Amino acid sequence: MEYRFLGPKISKFDLVNMSADDRRVLASELRDKILRTVSNNGGHLASSLGAVELTIALSTVFDYEKDKIVFDVGHQTYSYKLLTGRFGEFDTLRQEGGVSGFPRINESKYDAFDTGHSSTSVSAALGMARARDLKGDDNYVVAVIGDGALTGGLALEGINDLGISKTKMIVILNDNEMSIDKNVGGLSKHLAKIRTKRGYIKAKRSTESFLKKIPLIGGPLIRFILAIKDWFRFITYRKTPSIFEDLGIVYYGPVDGHDIETMIDTFNAVKDIADPVLIHVATSKGKGYRFAEEHPSDYHGVGPFDLDKGVVPSGKETFTTAFGKAIIDEASHNDKIVAVCAAMAMGTGLTEFAAQYKKRFFDCGIAEEHCVTMASGLAISGFIPVVAIYSSFLQRAYDEIVHDCCFMNNHVVFAIDRAGFVGHDGHTHHGLRDISFMNSMPSMTLFAARDYDDLRNILHYCINEINGPCAVRYPRGSSDYGNALYGDPSECVLPHLVADNGNDYALISVGVMCRECEIAYSRLAKAGLYGKHINLSLVKPVPSEALISLIGKASGVYVCEEGVLSGGAGEAIRNELQKIAPGIKVTPIAVEDDMISAASVERQREIAGIDSESIFNRILNKK
Amino acid sequence: MEYRFLGPKISKFDLVNMSADDRRVLASELRDKILRTVSNNGGHLASSLGAVELTIALSTVFDYEKDKIVFDVGHQTYSYKLLTGRFGEFDTLRQEGGVSGFPRINESKYDAFDTGHSSTSVSAALGMARARDLKGDDNYVVAVIGDGALTGGLALEGINDLGISKTKMIVILNDNEMSIDKNVGGLSKHLAKIRTKRGYIKAKRSTESFLKKIPLIGGPLIRFILAIKDWFRFITYRKTPSIFEDLGIVYYGPVDGHDIETMIDTFNAVKDIADPVLIHVATSKGKGYRFAEEHPSDYHGVGPFDLDKGVVPSGKETFTTAFGKAIIDEASHNDKIVAVCAAMAMGTGLTEFAAQYKKRFFDCGIAEEHCVTMASGLAISGFIPVVAIYSSFLQRAYDEIVHDCCFMNNHVVFAIDRAGFVGHDGHTHHGLRDISFMNSMPSMTLFAARDYDDLRNILHYCINEINGPCAVRYPRGSSDYGNALYGDPSECVLPHLVADNGNDYALISVGVMCRECEIAYSRLAKAGLYGKHINLSLVKPVPSEALISLIGKASGVYVCEEGVLSGGAGEAIRNELQKIAPGIKVTPIAVEDDMISAASVERQREIAGIDSESIFNRILNKK
Repeated sequence: MEYRFLGPKISKFDLVNMSADDRRVLASELRDKILRTVSNNGGHLASSLGAVELTIALSTVFDYEKDKIVFDVGHQTYSYKLLTGRFGEFDTLRQEGGVSGFPRINESKYDAFDTGHSSTSVSAALGMARARDLKGDDNYVVAVIGDGALTGGLALEGINDLGISKTKMIVILNDNEMSIDKNVGGLSKHLAKIRTKRGYIKAKRSTESFLKKIPLIGGPLIRFILAIKDWFRFITYRKTPSIFEDLGIVYYGPVDGHDIETMIDTFNAVKDIADPVLIHVATSKGKGYRFAEEHPSDYHGVGPFDLDKGVVPSGKETFTTAFGKAIIDEASHNDKIVAVCAAMAMGTGLTEFAAQYKKRFFDCGIAEEHCVTMASGLAISGFIPVVAIYSSFLQRAYDEIVHDCCFMNNHVVFAIDRAGFVGHDGHTHHGLRDISFMNSMPSMTLFAARDYDDLRNILHYCINEINGPCAVRYPRGSSDYGNALYGDPSECVLPHLVADNGNDYALISVGVMCRECEIAYSRLAKAGLYGKHINLSLVKPVPSEALISLIGKASGVYVCEEGVLSGGAGEAIRNELQKIAPGIKVTPIAVEDDMISAASVERQREIAGIDSESIFNRILNKK
Repeated sequence: MEYRFLGPKISKFDLVNMSADDRRVLASELRDKILRTVSNNGGHLASSLGAVELTIALSTVFDYEKDKIVFDVGHQTYSYKLLTGRFGEFDTLRQEGGVSGFPRINESKYDAFDTGHSSTSVSAALGMARARDLKGDDNYVVAVIGDGALTGGLALEGINDLGISKTKMIVILNDNEMSIDKNVGGLSKHLAKIRTKRGYIKAKRSTESFLKKIPLIGGPLIRFILAIKDWFRFITYRKTPSIFEDLGIVYYGPVDGHDIETMIDTFNAVKDIADPVLIHVATSKGKGYRFAEEHPSDYHGVGPFDLDKGVVPSGKETFTTAFGKAIIDEASHNDKIVAVCAAMAMGTGLTEFAAQYKKRFFDCGIAEEHCVTMASGLAISGFIPVVAIYSSFLQRAYDEIVHDCCFMNNHVVFAIDRAGFVGHDGHTHHGLRDISFMNSMPSMTLFAARDYDDLRNILHYCINEINGPCAVRYPRGSSDYGNALYGDPSECVLPHLVADNGNDYALISVGVMCRECEIAYSRLAKAGLYGKHINLSLVKPVPSEALISLIGKASGVYVCEEGVLSGGAGEAIRNELQKIAPGIKVTPIAVEDDMISAASVERQREIAGIDSESIFNRILNKK
């Protein structure tokens, strides 16, 4: 496809002077570019396809040289990146050193705020709007947030504060009725009711086109006339109130989020209202690509795929699918087991569980804090909730894990998916902090699964043998081993001696770091250094006695983990061993800087210094 | 005051069979007991006084043998404790080994869930209600939440999920228009509007008293008739809708929260509605004690005081007042400084700042996450936000500190009050985790202030010399030293040699642990052990070179901090020293179990093993 408009030099001037037809052509060009790039590189497809027209309208109305647009989560920003000077390098999307899949302030001055985790946009934008007011500037500040992200507590806190802020700020509610999965919650129902009852606002193009032809006065006059008309329309609309009005925010909508011209009119009409305004825009996730429109969840985040055939499920086993099967197996003979997730049934492998055990499945929306505290309520009432959340997103529930699970010793089982490096999503999505924060929590038991069998055994153990908070972490993607390679599968609580050819060193690999450590071990032997390789699944409490016995007379201990150094497994092992065997020197090999951008997981481990080569070098050089 | 009703044996039977007048007498007896106890022991007065009638109504209607009542935050539960078997030991309130100031599942089977941190009740109760449904039981589940706590994101996430849960659950919204300070936000305004517009529901006592006299059919019939009447009233009320109805929750109210009989009728009328119901109850914080009614913020949490005179401000300098003065001083010559707090202007010492710099002060409500992300929006726009939050509550914003501050290197200054043990509030309020979680965060600089001058210097340094996220922690209460005793005040980034009489050991005290370590140092000298005492304010990054130089030839290093061991200052120092001086053995002296209940701070340090005696013994015995 040859592009008529889309290219490295497209500017706001071009956008403003385009006809409605031209803008529609531009939309199709953006879709084409996004589809080609994502089908090559993988990426967040459905959200970005849904936001094409919205982004054109925003880019036509606002002036990115001074106005600030904060995109919530940020995976819908591909059009935005293409329209703000990143067309030329867009082929490098999500590649090492390339264009990030999320807004990055270090990538472009047009990215106002780094995002990746959900529900931050209203708060961040409110800070920017307040800063503008204090400075006496007059730029616009816009938060673009999905209806899924709006269910996050942080966003709701932001809306509550915004409602009394009396500041000029615009929230665009990009309502596609989806988080990654179908959206849940009272708010979602409320929005659906508004959409159904009111019907979409339509642009009054005739008046505008007429007025536009009158030179000089055209622009401001149009805005003035539209503002009056729309204010009237707004007053009428108040008869079907929205909760936003109740909270002190001027509500406006719903607007068809694929009708560029109406959006342009609407944004122009309301942007100078001196109070906070929310514009409700209804979009379709995956818009313009048939496969994605039909199955938007499948096209939320994708790997490379054939555009003509669509994404073909690989059927490949992963830690996620292994977990999905294991929890069904456990639930089939224990009706106390319930599953809880935060808007990610598919991502966490719970789709099948949700279908088979509908009443025992709770999708709480993008609301990790609520997931954990609600699960604690279930646990204290005699159920065994398995809470499946990605490591990176579980950070949101730090306080609730401590207070609502650990302090009461509630038997909540955390299934921590995407623990470790995650590859092309980059640093905002790495799951590198769970060991560190869980290690500090009283009564928590923490495992890191090495392979699928280990994951199954640990899950079984957590459900049946532990009577308090416990967790198992496992990474994105597939196991290096498939099923169990080492040790008696029933002994997930014990460290295993993987290999042993001497006492020059003892290398403890945590969970999946087994593979990198195996390679390092072999290379060390070739270099004349003979030691032991011990694999450990149980991170907390440290099985000190068993470790000491396996370490034997080895003269230096290294602990290799895929997580941050501070508070990690290495430090915990050092603490415990120092108590009973003060002579042993323990050196953690862990991640010291977790801001590692998009790349393959292998490459990210290299950069972090936890790959086989780095392990080999550190042991060889006794560092 | 002789009590006619209140005593160790008061039962639900007594309550149900009391006349309205008797219940009012009981209310005054509860108030008397609470006032006497709190004026002796200190405690949370205003909230508990406000909830007396509400608690009597709840206790009359619900059967605590099977129904579950979850009190949000839990500081309003003194009446509840007195009515559920804890009258006899109530004089031990908040004392070591005594009745806790918060609900504790280990204290009484009538406490359904441990609380302390805000906004958990809706989620926890929803878990309990779902568990009940799965079991096929029919007990009632009630969450009692204040309008302040309802602004917390966790509570809003819970409300959103509750709205589609189709479960029988009651939320009592205890609306006193206050958090600890005057409430803020759109939600608060919305509630005020409802209160003003609707007027309170009044009980139809005549019908009821009449029907009650007919034997046998009285009870159920009354409920039936009231239910029909009230359903009708409910339908009428929908004309002034509340956001709760928009979210799928049956709204009922407002009810005068000091009118016991109306509350009893209302609870009875709506408790069997099969859907989630919210009852809006309007109470006055501090009700029944003139001083507290007039100045509820001053009577939120109090120390012992004279009942006739009320609380007399001590005027004593504390870390909090020192911070309050210091930030005004900084702000007076730097107009980029703004202050942000989470519903705690008074608690964090910002009242005066808020008055002097109204436009530069942002109280975000009980919404720590939003505080941090909003502050990041201010920081990225060129302002220097100082975010003052208690250590324990800052845990809520773990993810936002990492993502919205650290990853973007935003210059947000955290003033972490109540860091360390907090005394009589017990384990839910200790600030023991901030060092641990901040140590793991990239680009964070962390200080622990030793005394007021140190705090001032650090704040000045954080504002003027650092260009990224930074934090200073300081404890509850007063300094052992007052102003600076050690070192050049401009050198807050360097460790100071406090005392030195040999090389047997080096003891590094972090921040205020200086005092305990000084005592230990003197005792060690008397016991024939001569070493060095080094005090450290800069926790992260570890000033390794300076430490090594002060440690000199000392043969073992101990690091004493008031925080959890895992990820703490001791571990960080050990890591860094091991890199440059692998021969030095570093032993952290830190808190290994942070679940230490109410007691004096001194006693809590003893229990945790970080008091001078424990430090002395560990160094003496080289442990």
